[in-house]
Amino acid sequence: MTSIPTHSLLLAVPLAGVACSGSEAPAAQPAERLLIDGGTVVVMDDAGTILEGGAVLVEGDRIAGLFDRAAPRPAGIPTLDATGQLVIPGLINTHGHAAMSLLRGLADDLPLMEWLEQNIFPAEAELVAPDFVYWGTLLSSIEMLKSGTTTFTDMYYFPDDVARATIEAGIRAVVGPNVIGFPAPDFETPEESLAEADAFMERYRDHPLLIAGTAAHALYTTPLEPTRAAFEVAERHNAPFQIHVVEARDEDERIEAAIGMRTIDALDSIGALRPGTVLAHGTYLSDEDIRKVAAGGAGVAHNPESNMKLGGDRAAPVEVLLAAGVPVGLGTDGPASNNDLDMFGEMDTAAKLHKFATGDPTALPAETVFRMATTYGARVLNQQDHIGSLDVGKKADIVLVETRRAGMTPLYRPYSQLVYVTRGSDVRTVLVNGRIVVRDGEITTVNEDEVMEKARGFADQIREVVARVKAQAK
Amino acid sequence: MTSIPTHSLLLAVPLAGVACSGSEAPAAQPAERLLIDGGTVVVMDDAGTILEGGAVLVEGDRIAGLFDRAAPRPAGIPTLDATGQLVIPGLINTHGHAAMSLLRGLADDLPLMEWLEQNIFPAEAELVAPDFVYWGTLLSSIEMLKSGTTTFTDMYYFPDDVARATIEAGIRAVVGPNVIGFPAPDFETPEESLAEADAFMERYRDHPLLIAGTAAHALYTTPLEPTRAAFEVAERHNAPFQIHVVEARDEDERIEAAIGMRTIDALDSIGALRPGTVLAHGTYLSDEDIRKVAAGGAGVAHNPESNMKLGGDRAAPVEVLLAAGVPVGLGTDGPASNNDLDMFGEMDTAAKLHKFATGDPTALPAETVFRMATTYGARVLNQQDHIGSLDVGKKADIVLVETRRAGMTPLYRPYSQLVYVTRGSDVRTVLVNGRIVVRDGEITTVNEDEVMEKARGFADQIREVVARVKAQAK
Repeated sequence: MTSIPTHSLLLAVPLAGVACSGSEAPAAQPAERLLIDGGTVVVMDDAGTILEGGAVLVEGDRIAGLFDRAAPRPAGIPTLDATGQLVIPGLINTHGHAAMSLLRGLADDLPLMEWLEQNIFPAEAELVAPDFVYWGTLLSSIEMLKSGTTTFTDMYYFPDDVARATIEAGIRAVVGPNVIGFPAPDFETPEESLAEADAFMERYRDHPLLIAGTAAHALYTTPLEPTRAAFEVAERHNAPFQIHVVEARDEDERIEAAIGMRTIDALDSIGALRPGTVLAHGTYLSDEDIRKVAAGGAGVAHNPESNMKLGGDRAAPVEVLLAAGVPVGLGTDGPASNNDLDMFGEMDTAAKLHKFATGDPTALPAETVFRMATTYGARVLNQQDHIGSLDVGKKADIVLVETRRAGMTPLYRPYSQLVYVTRGSDVRTVLVNGRIVVRDGEITTVNEDEVMEKARGFADQIREVVARVKAQAK
Repeated sequence: MTSIPTHSLLLAVPLAGVACSGSEAPAAQPAERLLIDGGTVVVMDDAGTILEGGAVLVEGDRIAGLFDRAAPRPAGIPTLDATGQLVIPGLINTHGHAAMSLLRGLADDLPLMEWLEQNIFPAEAELVAPDFVYWGTLLSSIEMLKSGTTTFTDMYYFPDDVARATIEAGIRAVVGPNVIGFPAPDFETPEESLAEADAFMERYRDHPLLIAGTAAHALYTTPLEPTRAAFEVAERHNAPFQIHVVEARDEDERIEAAIGMRTIDALDSIGALRPGTVLAHGTYLSDEDIRKVAAGGAGVAHNPESNMKLGGDRAAPVEVLLAAGVPVGLGTDGPASNNDLDMFGEMDTAAKLHKFATGDPTALPAETVFRMATTYGARVLNQQDHIGSLDVGKKADIVLVETRRAGMTPLYRPYSQLVYVTRGSDVRTVLVNGRIVVRDGEITTVNEDEVMEKARGFADQIREVVARVKAQAK
């Protein structure tokens, strides 16, 4: 990788200040420090700095310093050897339904309604309960951490159980009440769901991992009034708000027929197009929609693998959105419609899908796609001050990717390798909030074998439900 | 996986005969035997048999028996425990240029001509030589074996050096002289290339791993006469013949303008549309072309990731080809245009691309895609009597896929899991021709560290060449 210039200007400027902060506050427990040294540090700052043979200093839950190859390292700090590894910001999954991992591969390759009505919905209706959500979310959290995702965005039911699982796994997550206009597993009505929403938001205020936010499922399932109410809870708490928008070709026509407004206009009418609103999918956004989204500041979560697998016939207008200044992140969507949660695979697919869809091999280059999975994803969640890059002062969400295998050799350009070659299994070490949660490719926080065993138990129940539903349908 | 029926009819019928064969030929060294027991055996026979808790008996280079859970096992045979693993036929990569792994990620996201003329071609012109090809092919062979590919199809230069690398790695490969209508690294003219072609075919006749075959690069680079000559060598030796066809939208028009015939008609005119002819890409095959290909018996190698990445704006008509009876396999194409050789990723992309391209979520279901990577691929190479399934009597090319990780849990249906979830890194054990070439995820035949070190040395040279070319262009 001799072609990558080192950035000798980027000496450890912030280090002195950081080193002093401990002595300025002697009463406090000194923050633990760790030096990740010797790897190729892909900073994802605005300048696109790459430090070959560089180092990252972690202090407590924060990134406290960056060093190029030549810069002297502070002495006496425990060091993690990153030789042969790419050191990158933790990946940000901007859309999904984590607990649906328990339904992964239950049914595929079916017409959408047959997939939902004969398989997913009956299993969910009968089995989705706090335990299902807790174990399903744990299962997904393990998969995500081991493949380099350090923040995910969840839209499902029983948010306290989602929160419990993610905190145990040690992953950062956007979690909260989700309203939908029909009886859901956790609440019969949107009003019941929202009655406890403010309390939920308060419960996780300033939590080191949880980012409390609210969601409305979609305007085709949820009337505008409870959608507004859910959004207003998020707005009161300066929190993310999620909603599915224009995933299907005829969706906007159906919504306009029902409520007299198209999706983006309806969201605009309630003030919901502000920064921190996550518009999931956005496949059929029009140019006029895009102007309104850009003006409002909302972001889009693009889910290429799910969209393709469910037979979407158009790719979301990612390049148009980015050109208009709309932040676009990547999402896996639920693991029942993907069927995995590997953001490296999602990046590879995104880069290729848009080249195919436009006929232009220069569309969505690797660096842009890697930004979608990191800095742009952080902007979608309105968390850009905290996560998404290795800039000094941000949370220490850091992933080490091993490059020493035949399939990763040679390595000419880190972004190409990260997007087109790296697999989740190349991840060796993951820190979230300064804590090592994956070491040597293994999760350190929870017992993966136990979680898999529980998941297999749920799968046996799910098989029984689906078999019964299919027998009754005959 | 209780939903998968065991097939108690499939007892070890051939076993007795096989067990006797040793005693019938006492002078010969008794073939080594190995029982792979306890996994879920995905046979890929015509009936689609899946043996849960089944076993495969390997004797020498052959599959000698299949056992369902209840069938008694022969005693005293060394056993490989496959508990928790899927036991599948080795995957077949039907198109690629293996040594180009040395150019992986050198340049991406560029207009095709800029990618080729300022990056790939100059590097190839200056550096492609026997050593480059040997080490590049070794590098790719390691990547392919470790990700479950046991047979690949190569179209490049210096076929004896490709053969040397593949034999050392222990992978099965279709290799041979490749004619192209301009000076190539190995031969100045097609005539020179073909002068030694028969000798090459003889040299590897009945080789346990090498499948000697010939290739013509494409009709837009190679006149019809040398194409015919290359095909006739293959025909004399009853061997595979490869050629790129209609990869680009305007390709057929250019060929018709040059030689007065369209690609498929030209190949038909020389009798080349017979079984064992591998038509690489075939993106723009017309319905009339497809009828001719079906009538002739040739196969198509579909390369979805390469096609997407290079900005192809149409998906190859895979479902139309399959419906017409044309065997369609999967290929990675060269690792400079993908950028990996992982057939599991290729399967996932194929299944999703055709759903997207048709707008139909039922297009290319998982089982069909897995057949493309196994039995259909074998038919494309006209090797269906030897490889592609775990039928008794076929070569023991067998892959064990680990399923015990969170991201592979639960497991409802093996084909879905293999296509939508499995990654190359889930491969733990690989046998080619009865020999264990990957054990516990590590290559056993060659020194991966040494090969990577050599590859990095070539990469340094490649960087220098490309930098010089770009400096001269300014």
